[in-house]
Amino acid sequence: MSKLYQLLQQDAVILENSIVKVDSFLNHQMNIELFEEIRDQFYEYFKDKKIDKIITCEASGIGIAIMVAQAFRVNVVFAKKDESQILTNNCYTAPVFSYTKNKESVIKIDKRFIQANENILIIDDFLANGEAVAGLINIVQQAHAHVRGIGIVIEKGFQQGGQRLREKGFDLYSLAIIDAIIENQLIMRV
Amino acid sequence: MSKLYQLLQQDAVILENSIVKVDSFLNHQMNIELFEEIRDQFYEYFKDKKIDKIITCEASGIGIAIMVAQAFRVNVVFAKKDESQILTNNCYTAPVFSYTKNKESVIKIDKRFIQANENILIIDDFLANGEAVAGLINIVQQAHAHVRGIGIVIEKGFQQGGQRLREKGFDLYSLAIIDAIIENQLIMRV
Repeated sequence: MSKLYQLLQQDAVILENSIVKVDSFLNHQMNIELFEEIRDQFYEYFKDKKIDKIITCEASGIGIAIMVAQAFRVNVVFAKKDESQILTNNCYTAPVFSYTKNKESVIKIDKRFIQANENILIIDDFLANGEAVAGLINIVQQAHAHVRGIGIVIEKGFQQGGQRLREKGFDLYSLAIIDAIIENQLIMRV
Repeated sequence: MSKLYQLLQQDAVILENSIVKVDSFLNHQMNIELFEEIRDQFYEYFKDKKIDKIITCEASGIGIAIMVAQAFRVNVVFAKKDESQILTNNCYTAPVFSYTKNKESVIKIDKRFIQANENILIIDDFLANGEAVAGLINIVQQAHAHVRGIGIVIEKGFQQGGQRLREKGFDLYSLAIIDAIIENQLIMRV
């Protein structure tokens, strides 16, 4: 069994509204063995795609993205969410609604950091309704670059984000898919 | 010359109030060759410290910390800044004032993720007045763990944070120190 499945079964905490809390290994504490497994699995799957750049969203995507970037020998760009005074206005922007935080925010990437025709790999920790990934795709398309793949650590298969992306033809690879949450247990796709 | 010095001289942009913008290689786009150099330099300096865990602040510290963590074979914990609904109240907290954003925020780390007597390496991208690092030290001390080292990518030597930490006896290692900004040029310590 992969380290990811093992940690999901042992350490994930299920809260109300189907929130799966994985802060002990993925998005608050980061388990180094898990991150190395993630790096290797994404590289194995996407290695023939001639990836030029990896993009993700702050904050939880950053650690995963830089690990994967080492394998591909490419740079990472992470989309910013807040209104930092030192990010210029010369940015691609996209609206993103967070169901976890119950608010809409804007993600942005400086236009200097995505070139037309670049082959982009999108990486993120979670996929549920797919709002964050849709925002990143929106930005890549504004830049006239190409989304060559989408790598997600944990997909909630009982929500609609993954299905929508696959129907649109995106090459989406999720390392773990949760098909249901029944009596406080994760039902994982095998 | 190191990759870091080369990128600082070539690509850093100097804004008003001595803000040094390094978003093309450090904290928006992340240059993979630079991150590998950073990993190797911090490991070489701190490798005899028996580090158990690396802590940092979201968002810019995360990518650096996970790179360094690979060399040490330890986990990372990143302090969170916002009021996420899924972070429990069972956290160590510390106030941090950001001069860049001109506002005070609270950083927090779940109490489960720092154990008493752990040997902690603090990693961050920038050190100016030292507010973020002081907040992390505060949290480590609340947990009765030990700050064994502080690794900073870029220190502003003309501000007070570095001097204060060294006077208090912390083992602070900055990969680049900017001693002054004169006529829109970085004067780097060699």
